[in-house]
Amino acid sequence: MYTFEECQDIVNKALNNINLKQEPANLYTPIEYILSIGGKRIRPALVLMACNIFSDTIEDSINAAIALEIFHNFTLLHDDIMDNAKMRRGRQTVHEKWDLNTAILSGDAMCVMAFDFILKLKNEINNKILPVFTQASIDVCRGQQMDMDFEIRNKVSVAEYIEMITLKTSSLLAASMKIGALSGKANETDAQCIYEFGKNVGISFQLQDDLLDAFGDENKFGKKNGGDIVANKKTYLLIKALELAQGEDYKILTNILSSRGLEPEEKIGLVIEIYRKLNIEQITSEQINSYFIEAMKCINKININVDKIEPLLTFTNQLMERKS
Amino acid sequence: MYTFEECQDIVNKALNNINLKQEPANLYTPIEYILSIGGKRIRPALVLMACNIFSDTIEDSINAAIALEIFHNFTLLHDDIMDNAKMRRGRQTVHEKWDLNTAILSGDAMCVMAFDFILKLKNEINNKILPVFTQASIDVCRGQQMDMDFEIRNKVSVAEYIEMITLKTSSLLAASMKIGALSGKANETDAQCIYEFGKNVGISFQLQDDLLDAFGDENKFGKKNGGDIVANKKTYLLIKALELAQGEDYKILTNILSSRGLEPEEKIGLVIEIYRKLNIEQITSEQINSYFIEAMKCINKININVDKIEPLLTFTNQLMERKS
Repeated sequence: MYTFEECQDIVNKALNNINLKQEPANLYTPIEYILSIGGKRIRPALVLMACNIFSDTIEDSINAAIALEIFHNFTLLHDDIMDNAKMRRGRQTVHEKWDLNTAILSGDAMCVMAFDFILKLKNEINNKILPVFTQASIDVCRGQQMDMDFEIRNKVSVAEYIEMITLKTSSLLAASMKIGALSGKANETDAQCIYEFGKNVGISFQLQDDLLDAFGDENKFGKKNGGDIVANKKTYLLIKALELAQGEDYKILTNILSSRGLEPEEKIGLVIEIYRKLNIEQITSEQINSYFIEAMKCINKININVDKIEPLLTFTNQLMERKS
Repeated sequence: MYTFEECQDIVNKALNNINLKQEPANLYTPIEYILSIGGKRIRPALVLMACNIFSDTIEDSINAAIALEIFHNFTLLHDDIMDNAKMRRGRQTVHEKWDLNTAILSGDAMCVMAFDFILKLKNEINNKILPVFTQASIDVCRGQQMDMDFEIRNKVSVAEYIEMITLKTSSLLAASMKIGALSGKANETDAQCIYEFGKNVGISFQLQDDLLDAFGDENKFGKKNGGDIVANKKTYLLIKALELAQGEDYKILTNILSSRGLEPEEKIGLVIEIYRKLNIEQITSEQINSYFIEAMKCINKININVDKIEPLLTFTNQLMERKS
């Protein structure tokens, strides 16, 4: 059985072997750049790990893994334009280093390249994989649109927020695992179980991201808490707080959100105070656990020796135990 | 046998039947808009006509036709951003009517939707079609990049220009026909012949576009000639003229191109004068004819009753006989 780290290595080697010294260079150089500046390779590693549950050989699924990583980086490239982000993984974003047109077009080419890599698999496999990949790709676009819509809306419900993160983040994680399982010749039932596992882990992971922004261990990586609060980002914590706050608390919270005169530190302090009063940290932790338990139920439905899913569970636990 | 106009009708009806009243509306409304503002539906109609050469029923290829039209409109949507175009088909472009982010994301979703429509075909067909579609999609991105590169380059050769228009324009026309043929169960040899036919017709068509901009019949649609000349666009005519011009003529031509003080009418007049001196109109016409003859050679290799290709030839002749 391959561990997450071993799968990461296999992915990195395969990515290095893609020939991106192609013409026109202005199209391919930015693609080479974004793929080379790292990232944790979570999605492609999950493809390989999910394949490995059902198959001892994982070579056949490597092209699917590459497809997922290229697609994910395409979405990052275009999201960075939409978010007007200057940096990604400590390096300049593509539209900053080159320009807008380059970022749009190189992204488009990556989207198509992702499909091209899936087509390298055998027909009987890619006939099953392609609908999963295409659906997840549409989900990601829908989730990104919802995320942008939420930014300018006054009110977002918890259910809407969960739908958005499911589409924007969980869907591609879930699809990575299902695609891995299918390329390892899992049957449809087992492949769907692992999809549901991935979906619930993904939601759980995103909620934890929200939680760590407000309550993470600042000393661990030296990253300051409260970035989401300063940016008025509609995280699970804020949405839940707005739902629970009543009377004076609600007034204070909405005043903080609309006030432009507050210093970041002051704003973070005031919001955290309300979060504590409303028990938001515990409520969020309970949500995270409940999605995680659901994920475990899904994976336990798979009819396979528990040893086979061990590496995937180890990795998932690592993800959930991070403190910052 | 279906005529081009009948195929256009079938395409327009099928496009109208796509349900784009989906959520999030901010993602799907721009897609509905760009698909509804018309266009000649050349690519999807060619899918159906090419299918009809090999099959009396064309229903099975309609989803492939839709895929080609959605993909083509995705490229228009993103090209309009890159060209900073305000209008498309007499209506506002998507990034003008909405904004940049909407145009990027709705375009991305259309790219994926195109693949989704191809997946609606039977597996044994889409296994053959998908590699053709994916290759053409990558070609279009490469051609667009070359086109942008040429804008800021001083010198472009005729061979480079032909490669660029082949990738940017002809490739998708050629792929439309090959995809139609394959969905009508043509064999690989015949399907490749029709691809080569489409490729040569496409090059011929683009060169004619260049020619009509300088020498078209202005009275026909009331469109003024010379737009490419005013914009210093590196068309076949200009590239050829720069290649042939010598001594004083070359100096005059390069001076005109770099001069910013000229009135449009004056600039057009001076360039046309040099074009006439260098016989550019006739040289271009000969090139157009030579690609058209090559196209005819390709289609004649197809082992099929000539009646079957009649509607496609009628349409191609109409395309080539336009005067403006």
